[in-house]
Amino acid sequence: VAELELIRAVERALRARGGRVLAGPGDDAAVVRARPIAVTSIDTIVEGVHFELSTHAFSDVGHKALATALSDLAAMGVEPGEAYAALVLQPELETDRALELVGGMEQLAERTGVTIAGGDVVNGPVLTVSVTVTGWAEREEEIVRRDGARPDDLVGVSGPLGGSGAGLELLRGARVELPEAVWEALLARHRRPEPRLAAGQTLAAAGVSAMIDLSDGVAADASHLAERSGVELGIDLAAVPLAAGVAEVAAAVGADPLRFAATAGDDYELLFTVPPERAEAVEAAAGSAGSEAVWLGRAAAGGGATFRDAAGRAVALAGYEHA
Amino acid sequence: VAELELIRAVERALRARGGRVLAGPGDDAAVVRARPIAVTSIDTIVEGVHFELSTHAFSDVGHKALATALSDLAAMGVEPGEAYAALVLQPELETDRALELVGGMEQLAERTGVTIAGGDVVNGPVLTVSVTVTGWAEREEEIVRRDGARPDDLVGVSGPLGGSGAGLELLRGARVELPEAVWEALLARHRRPEPRLAAGQTLAAAGVSAMIDLSDGVAADASHLAERSGVELGIDLAAVPLAAGVAEVAAAVGADPLRFAATAGDDYELLFTVPPERAEAVEAAAGSAGSEAVWLGRAAAGGGATFRDAAGRAVALAGYEHA
Repeated sequence: VAELELIRAVERALRARGGRVLAGPGDDAAVVRARPIAVTSIDTIVEGVHFELSTHAFSDVGHKALATALSDLAAMGVEPGEAYAALVLQPELETDRALELVGGMEQLAERTGVTIAGGDVVNGPVLTVSVTVTGWAEREEEIVRRDGARPDDLVGVSGPLGGSGAGLELLRGARVELPEAVWEALLARHRRPEPRLAAGQTLAAAGVSAMIDLSDGVAADASHLAERSGVELGIDLAAVPLAAGVAEVAAAVGADPLRFAATAGDDYELLFTVPPERAEAVEAAAGSAGSEAVWLGRAAAGGGATFRDAAGRAVALAGYEHA
Repeated sequence: VAELELIRAVERALRARGGRVLAGPGDDAAVVRARPIAVTSIDTIVEGVHFELSTHAFSDVGHKALATALSDLAAMGVEPGEAYAALVLQPELETDRALELVGGMEQLAERTGVTIAGGDVVNGPVLTVSVTVTGWAEREEEIVRRDGARPDDLVGVSGPLGGSGAGLELLRGARVELPEAVWEALLARHRRPEPRLAAGQTLAAAGVSAMIDLSDGVAADASHLAERSGVELGIDLAAVPLAAGVAEVAAAVGADPLRFAATAGDDYELLFTVPPERAEAVEAAAGSAGSEAVWLGRAAAGGGATFRDAAGRAVALAGYEHA
């Protein structure tokens, strides 16, 4: 692409929101009116590793890059503010395709009240998108970290799992009979993951003690949270809520549905811990944000995450990375 | 690389500075105590496009990725705060090489008072590093943008040009006799560009009206500044200060030294405009930061940048991109 021409077209495609941005794209850096606490994360997706252009439109790629970054802010319970996007584009890529990518990002930004306030466009051999997002809070205490889980806390998840992994298996050609709406929902779940920003903020306000977004799957991410908190998270696999169609797709590819849902990843639901006395408030908060609070187990003294099947037997889950 | 193992090793290699960082790497996002104005930029470098592993050590790559991002903050005149680094690494890359890259970045961070507060490590086929940097200011008025140049302002540059381009030509095999110290300085200039952070802050305080960092070369970057400010910048090529050895290297590759210095780019000096009555103060400010203020010309009504040779003839400069 012609970098300068594209940069101008991108600038025209972007809108500022929320009144914080004093200078957006077009200068050496963006200038933003801050609030007292900044919460920042950077995330990168690479063609052939995190998505395939044979199954993802350019607008899906833009959506996914911003969504995965925003999901980190959801897990901190903060309001998102600005995004900064670095695009590595193949020299032969048409400007219109690059603008579709930016359009997919801008559409999600609009829906979530985010301003894409800056970026970088460079040539390179492999389509790569890095997105940095900053969210804002008034006080440090509003922010939920990974390290706050305590023994006896309940472990909850904000919604059904396995949908993104099932969508990927469908794209890879899994043969299964499903109602068309279920099929489409699984593909959408994979191509356009939804950051649980509203749920993250209401769960934080309702007093969850620790939170993490499910990018790698419950198996891996519960371990990360357990390790940071210095507790053991005991998770009952039979309690894992399955997205519609996941059982059928897992069966079609010869996998156990619950193991599949716990390890396939990319669902971007939130995993959280809650002191038992706040469980009801957290259920109400999740519901008010259009999510759920499904209880998977409990924290105990110890370390790491352990998984039990319906018969109470320990199950070893290797974090199967599917892209 | 094994992502998780590397991430832990990276976390151990990083230090927090300045007391702003409340939670660094290890959570979903970093938590930082903000100041009233946030200034943020993202920059990406790609192997084979912005650097070559045949001529750059991994530590050079880390340095360069952070340096080019910090240079944008230098051009805004703000104090740098935090950096967030996304690394795309080949799966077969050894952890030690990745840590050398992070080490080069951390060394520059230490020297400039920056905290690398977060990041992302993913696998991919081409070594790519995206760095987002945030700097802070108390008031919007402290920040220097590209759009403040006015007719009659003087145009200045903070130091000699062409050094990085000459270093690249030496790496590409240009045959020229040079004292070893000059040769080494040119290579260092290319491999380890230095963001002019101190100069940017003192120049801003001394009242420059607009500023931009010279990543693409005076020819291209003066045009960007002129366009944003709505003025014409008239630049006298004969006034462009040459880094030691640039004249010899340019001659060896059959280029006019001044044209070479104006177009080769990657010098990361600062180009700025100054109302004439502040010129002396700006010269003193640049000197106090170990830089210079070399006057290249003057702004006038109109638009774009124009270049004249020593005889006063107009010279057309096509921004020759050498990387």
